[in-house]
Amino acid sequence: MTNLPVRVAACQIELRIGEPDRNRAVADAAVRVVAGNGARIVVLPELTPSGYVFATAAEARSLAEQAAGGPTIAQWSGLAAELDLVIVGGFAELGADGAVYNSAVIVDRTGPRCVYRKAHLWDAEADCFEPGDTAPPVADTRYGRIGVLICYDAEFPEWVRQPALAGAELLAVPTNWPAELVPPGERPNVVVNIQAAAFANRMFIAAACRTGTERGVSWTGGSVIAGPDGYALAGPAGTGPELIYAQCDLSLARSKANGPRNDVHADRRLDLYAPGLRA
Amino acid sequence: MTNLPVRVAACQIELRIGEPDRNRAVADAAVRVVAGNGARIVVLPELTPSGYVFATAAEARSLAEQAAGGPTIAQWSGLAAELDLVIVGGFAELGADGAVYNSAVIVDRTGPRCVYRKAHLWDAEADCFEPGDTAPPVADTRYGRIGVLICYDAEFPEWVRQPALAGAELLAVPTNWPAELVPPGERPNVVVNIQAAAFANRMFIAAACRTGTERGVSWTGGSVIAGPDGYALAGPAGTGPELIYAQCDLSLARSKANGPRNDVHADRRLDLYAPGLRA
Repeated sequence: MTNLPVRVAACQIELRIGEPDRNRAVADAAVRVVAGNGARIVVLPELTPSGYVFATAAEARSLAEQAAGGPTIAQWSGLAAELDLVIVGGFAELGADGAVYNSAVIVDRTGPRCVYRKAHLWDAEADCFEPGDTAPPVADTRYGRIGVLICYDAEFPEWVRQPALAGAELLAVPTNWPAELVPPGERPNVVVNIQAAAFANRMFIAAACRTGTERGVSWTGGSVIAGPDGYALAGPAGTGPELIYAQCDLSLARSKANGPRNDVHADRRLDLYAPGLRA
Repeated sequence: MTNLPVRVAACQIELRIGEPDRNRAVADAAVRVVAGNGARIVVLPELTPSGYVFATAAEARSLAEQAAGGPTIAQWSGLAAELDLVIVGGFAELGADGAVYNSAVIVDRTGPRCVYRKAHLWDAEADCFEPGDTAPPVADTRYGRIGVLICYDAEFPEWVRQPALAGAELLAVPTNWPAELVPPGERPNVVVNIQAAAFANRMFIAAACRTGTERGVSWTGGSVIAGPDGYALAGPAGTGPELIYAQCDLSLARSKANGPRNDVHADRRLDLYAPGLRA
């Protein structure tokens, strides 16, 4: 593990429902651009190969692939090996149990390090996907310790705590944030939430959203890389395709001190938070 | 309980260490102004009568007052009765146990409804105060259900959940945010955190900070009233004295639905968050 800053990129790319080869090509191109610009950790959107607005569960299933040997993880593993990257991105996973999951993978030059299944499903996702039921993984990579959550997952602070407490220095959040009205002068609330999640855990968070209207649904954009102070180091992106970069000294996230006598993790009052669970 | 919108005010006032009579007069004047402008729920800063930057624990103790019969709660209760308000503000409390607490009170026209003791102490507060060890209260008032946390407390999402789950429609947060460097174009991270806490729980939050450099310490300001979407309805204030107002339909916070099929509380995966606590 190095203490040197590493360049992190979030790729806000245009995706299309039901065009996995085309979407993988778009992702491949974006990864090559950001790697050429020095990025070594690359975050791609949720459900990058499949797209998001499935007409039916059968359509989602038809676009799902197995984690082992599937074309998307194979592609990303190849890119990671060729360009010495860590890539985190989302895909529709066909589980060995026959269920379909909204998943994300962390790959590095050695191949896939771990697969995570989204535990908090948004809206019609519940018709297409089984929710995950295991804790989010943290991968110890040559660039730092990297965790992953997917989109709506990150809106549950209890869930964000899990990878943070497991030592994630950078949390990657592949996302597809459907567009909502944002009041003038405000950042989208989903972006604000990412910043606050970084602040609450003194870790870096890189969220990559998507673009491309899909069956009438458009997207917030707003891809952002937040530092451990909760401030945006890059982004928030607009609503169009955009590649954002931040130089991140991930070692800063190893200390949870937020003042000479305070620590965002040690100061938690676990004696008070969940007495009902201890009875 | 009414469903009509109620005007909420956060009073960012100038306070001085060790001048409780003067500080109470400043608070009295601010409350009268905002009440005259239609506010019915009024939030005052943390440690309003005493000031914050104590030289010694003995000084903090000398500025503490008992909740029952103390001059500050008496004053605020009088104002609440006279002007038909709910007032939430912070004060240094001398407990019946002889300990000194960083506390806040909710008063309405019937007098004090509940006293809360800050559970997460910041920096040198630990030299002056005992931490509280009870859950934050929620008062059912004629204007809605109102909860209270104090400053650093609100940076622990687990703790914010407690009043939200107990039905708080508006969380009042008396605060003294010490000034920190804020990058250009960014809102202070403490403000972002308040917005995200509102978003995570679909409740209103009104945070009132202070002004007035005190023994070399200045303040963020940034008083803000956030709606259940996480957007600022009023503020964030600047660094000077400022009274901010928002018309809040508190009944909106009774539904936790954030979409046709989602709910920020019901969607929590309690089966996953704290397995270690259940063993």
